[in-house]
Amino acid sequence: PEAIHGRRKVQDPPVVHDLRVSLEEIFHGCTKRMKITRRRLNPDGRTVRTEDKILNIVIKKGWKEGTKITFPKEGDETPENIPADIAFILKDKGHPHFKRDSSNIIYTCKISLKEALCGCTVNIPTIDNRVIPLPCNDVIKPGTVKRLRGEGLPYPKSPSQRGDLIVEFQVRFPDRIPPQSREIIKQNLPVS
Amino acid sequence: PEAIHGRRKVQDPPVVHDLRVSLEEIFHGCTKRMKITRRRLNPDGRTVRTEDKILNIVIKKGWKEGTKITFPKEGDETPENIPADIAFILKDKGHPHFKRDSSNIIYTCKISLKEALCGCTVNIPTIDNRVIPLPCNDVIKPGTVKRLRGEGLPYPKSPSQRGDLIVEFQVRFPDRIPPQSREIIKQNLPVS
Repeated sequence: PEAIHGRRKVQDPPVVHDLRVSLEEIFHGCTKRMKITRRRLNPDGRTVRTEDKILNIVIKKGWKEGTKITFPKEGDETPENIPADIAFILKDKGHPHFKRDSSNIIYTCKISLKEALCGCTVNIPTIDNRVIPLPCNDVIKPGTVKRLRGEGLPYPKSPSQRGDLIVEFQVRFPDRIPPQSREIIKQNLPVS
Repeated sequence: PEAIHGRRKVQDPPVVHDLRVSLEEIFHGCTKRMKITRRRLNPDGRTVRTEDKILNIVIKKGWKEGTKITFPKEGDETPENIPADIAFILKDKGHPHFKRDSSNIIYTCKISLKEALCGCTVNIPTIDNRVIPLPCNDVIKPGTVKRLRGEGLPYPKSPSQRGDLIVEFQVRFPDRIPPQSREIIKQNLPVS
């Protein structure tokens, strides 16, 4: 290693991976085990071997999308380099019911026009697999929003408190109304 | 001017103004007269005077927002400079009824839920001050769009042809419905 001795080693640029995490995992917190394969320098300082390693990535409750977790110098070793940092950036996995907005969870609730006008009770699923019945007695206009306080994600800096579950209503219209019903509805619907 | 003779003159950076134009002006085409005040070099090549000048800006039919019209070297003259170019960039003025989307004009038509469900004829204003009756016999769902072909803005490159007038519907819901009407509507509204 004479040729290298005294020369300033330079670190390889960081290796960045996306880390997809579900809303449930963000809600509960979790540990992701990621296997990496890296080249390591043998004791002779010249030859390298390939080694597998498990990185344990601890995801704390409520962490936001974009959070970066860095493992310093876990990249490939060569005789000449300082190994790169390995970084993971949190990305939300798509969810069948929910999307998130910071520490709030947004749920789109689709109801029929009949339910919107005549009242209904909708069953709202929560991130922890309960169902909350939400009575809607007033007219629900398209875009109406209701808030279930404290049913969102934990705040990352004080995880005992939680954001809200925000219910956004979409109103499904019928494709057509038969003429006789039309006339009756016309007489009974207030001017808006 | 000995000191200057032989030295390379540099042009001042362009002076850029926004030019607000109404949709009607874009529709018909127009000429905008803009007064500028500039310093001009006297024949002695050393002293300057202030001069007003009218720039005639010809706006052709259908020109898009962002179109740039340049008047070369109409900036201030000094013994040392090449005068700046004066440029105008087209911006749409707000319009009480319309906004534009490229060569299409968008009109938001607000109707009541009763009209949306039971049918109506809406009167659509055009950019050239006509009114087009638009019959709506089918149920109008929120976000429904209808197109009046050729009632938009002229295409800038072939102004004899025109884009469309796009009618976007917004449906106004009643704030409340009295219980007895509610019951009747419930019986007459199809499942959607």
